[in-house]
Amino acid sequence: MAARQPGIAHSVTIRAEYANQVGMLGRITSAIGKAGGDIGAIDIVSGGRDGMVRDITVNARDVDHEHEIVETVRALDGVKVLNVSDQVFLRHLGGKIEMRSKTPVKTRNDMSIVYTPGVARVSMAIHDDPESVWTLTSKSNTVAVVTDGSAVLGLGDIGPAAALPVMEGKALLFKELAGVDAWPIALDTKDPDEIVRIVKGISVGFGGINLEDISAPRCFYIEERLRAELDIPVFHDDQHGTAVVVLAGLLNALKVVDKRMEDLKVVVTGVGAGGLATTKLLITSGVKNILGFDRQGILHRGREYGDNEAKSWFANATNPDDLKGGIDEAMDGADLFVGLSAPGVISVDHVKLMNRDAIVFAMANPDPEIWPEDVVGHVRVMATGRSDYPNQVNNALCFPGMFRGVLDARASEINDEMKIAAAQAIAAGVPDRHLNEEYIMPSIFDTSVVRTVARDVAAAARKTGVARRRRRRS
Amino acid sequence: MAARQPGIAHSVTIRAEYANQVGMLGRITSAIGKAGGDIGAIDIVSGGRDGMVRDITVNARDVDHEHEIVETVRALDGVKVLNVSDQVFLRHLGGKIEMRSKTPVKTRNDMSIVYTPGVARVSMAIHDDPESVWTLTSKSNTVAVVTDGSAVLGLGDIGPAAALPVMEGKALLFKELAGVDAWPIALDTKDPDEIVRIVKGISVGFGGINLEDISAPRCFYIEERLRAELDIPVFHDDQHGTAVVVLAGLLNALKVVDKRMEDLKVVVTGVGAGGLATTKLLITSGVKNILGFDRQGILHRGREYGDNEAKSWFANATNPDDLKGGIDEAMDGADLFVGLSAPGVISVDHVKLMNRDAIVFAMANPDPEIWPEDVVGHVRVMATGRSDYPNQVNNALCFPGMFRGVLDARASEINDEMKIAAAQAIAAGVPDRHLNEEYIMPSIFDTSVVRTVARDVAAAARKTGVARRRRRRS
Repeated sequence: MAARQPGIAHSVTIRAEYANQVGMLGRITSAIGKAGGDIGAIDIVSGGRDGMVRDITVNARDVDHEHEIVETVRALDGVKVLNVSDQVFLRHLGGKIEMRSKTPVKTRNDMSIVYTPGVARVSMAIHDDPESVWTLTSKSNTVAVVTDGSAVLGLGDIGPAAALPVMEGKALLFKELAGVDAWPIALDTKDPDEIVRIVKGISVGFGGINLEDISAPRCFYIEERLRAELDIPVFHDDQHGTAVVVLAGLLNALKVVDKRMEDLKVVVTGVGAGGLATTKLLITSGVKNILGFDRQGILHRGREYGDNEAKSWFANATNPDDLKGGIDEAMDGADLFVGLSAPGVISVDHVKLMNRDAIVFAMANPDPEIWPEDVVGHVRVMATGRSDYPNQVNNALCFPGMFRGVLDARASEINDEMKIAAAQAIAAGVPDRHLNEEYIMPSIFDTSVVRTVARDVAAAARKTGVARRRRRRS
Repeated sequence: MAARQPGIAHSVTIRAEYANQVGMLGRITSAIGKAGGDIGAIDIVSGGRDGMVRDITVNARDVDHEHEIVETVRALDGVKVLNVSDQVFLRHLGGKIEMRSKTPVKTRNDMSIVYTPGVARVSMAIHDDPESVWTLTSKSNTVAVVTDGSAVLGLGDIGPAAALPVMEGKALLFKELAGVDAWPIALDTKDPDEIVRIVKGISVGFGGINLEDISAPRCFYIEERLRAELDIPVFHDDQHGTAVVVLAGLLNALKVVDKRMEDLKVVVTGVGAGGLATTKLLITSGVKNILGFDRQGILHRGREYGDNEAKSWFANATNPDDLKGGIDEAMDGADLFVGLSAPGVISVDHVKLMNRDAIVFAMANPDPEIWPEDVVGHVRVMATGRSDYPNQVNNALCFPGMFRGVLDARASEINDEMKIAAAQAIAAGVPDRHLNEEYIMPSIFDTSVVRTVARDVAAAARKTGVARRRRRRS
């Protein structure tokens, strides 16, 4: 694997004790530097005549690299490593989310208003006018982030408990970026009908459902049933969020390389949740020639797909020339590679087979199909799902604004028009005059983009008749 | 019905316009006073030579009284009511709860730590060591407040949406009083097995389950199954929270009237969730003579109860003399009346039948079985569930500290020892030297009581072997 850049995702703080002599700190820091560590803050814990204790924070490339750096320091003469703490784990201790009151509850009077006896009248008002649940409770701003932990990031089926930190992280982004109150619901079942039953059962208090990290093909059935049976929007982010941000990135990448949707040859690897939804949205947006690719090769009409409806759909709806073969055949002359699969699926040699001005979206999480360092000079536009490289094609650009718009419009569903509106709004977040190979996606933290996405999604909801509220929340 | 005191639970702000003449405001306020309104803040909205506009906030007794006061003002010559706003509804607009981040999410680095790619290692740590979900996620401090809306306050089966404001209010108290993060889960089903399935399905992310406002006898079956099948504590507050606060109040009331548990004749009306659990806990605490009472009269062994196991249990386990009859027979010579039923179930004449130094806990919500004003001089200790009268025997004295202790000890269940520990800690919240007829319960806002309850509950959990964490959370 390529030598990646050290990053905050692998940041350790090493507490080191050493004799208080000139040059000791320099020996430690240059040893860390030689080991490839990127030194951040250096703090004094205690110091005196005899010895110094310092906290040295170092970014590493990965877990092995973390260990390597710590061992390098440990091996230095006269240096004792007292403690090693991991910044990522420290920030997760006790969890990342909490419930907070929006109204003071300090006195008896407060309690008489927000709880018994005052609350009884509010409850009866909702009982008498069910629509008022939208104005008199938190439903109108609350989204359930639902997972069964079966397809978490690139980690696979790690189960609902292990998925919780991801769901909490997602809830943070919902709030920080769009003011949406999201609460994680991790499900202790993988049965699709049971998941449908549970989500329907708990939907009363939520204004929308964000399905997350549920594996294909179950995710298609679950989303389809919930969309049909609930009156609030249901959005499987791994499908549609991915599709929206890929379309957004592509809209801008095409401007950079000056190509058109209808002329592209596109290879999609990973024909699961993200791959299928992305392919559908690309077709809706004008792409004609898409090849799906799985472990057995290109999806074509001559293959057997058993009961995998997604792959059957793929074989029939894509690959107009009914091309057969492996990754070499697929990549030959391709304009766009969309990776939604796993690290290492393509090599530099495969990338070299692509058309001029190639575009690579390597979005496997957390490790992409191929590292940006490895394809320098071979592709024109390179994007990943990561926040520590340029061109982050990450769902976080979509879901906060999407749900903000959905909740503002009190939409009953999320349709294609709303997804395309979101993609266009994201793409417009990078002004044309600033567009370049390393800047096709706006920053996730650009809240003006979130606001634009929300506004345009709400407008599309009203235009398509799925909004239940006329004007935007002020 | 008795003339109750005006309170904040029925507080209206009347925006009135009138000619700017001496004496006009006095006419308005005295008219409100004559109508029985309790005037709070008076603010100037705009004023000038021609006319004044003022906001006059008035506490009323109930909804009818609110209207009466507004009409009184409206009827005054030269006064125009521009607007009437209800303080309780204003405080509920948009809901009362939100999700908040416990860690900053402002930069790319933050995102790399709390979300992808950093979060992947945290998820894998939980995958490799499932117990670490308690330290690396919010589970350890989070409680689901679960209802189906079938028995909300005294309002009955108003459904899950109408129950939401109550659940949100409860979540506020959890947080404000005990730092517990509670999230409402309103269930769109009344089927007991379905409720069990859903709660089991979503339990992964929660450290405890607070069942709320689920009607009897379904609540017994649901709680029993969940207690048996989940490894986190399940606590139906209407049952056990009620039992704990009644026991706490009784411990102190008995000191005031100088009686002993074993000598009491107790009448319990409302043999549903609260009545059954309270009776069981009173028996465990030494009470010998309890009579249950429902619409057909005293529960005795000669009656038919069909498949109502709660009532059958009652008939067999209580009423040692197998007394038959109506409310007159029940109340004759009773030392304690525990009302967990509905307004108006007993009259002043019934109260007069009680033993000397009678104790009445009239806890129907929001309107008690009998109003305190009506029994002045006829009972020694009078308590209700309301925050606007003395001696509030309210579950809010129990559940925050109970769950704080449970989460601190990481308890797997809540047993009788923990309930009794909670009751004793609550009772001890009123020092003996301060105890009197109007002060048998500590304030809900006395956080030292919450801390003592938490400490003693956690200690009882450790003592009975259900704690999974040795030391108290610091």
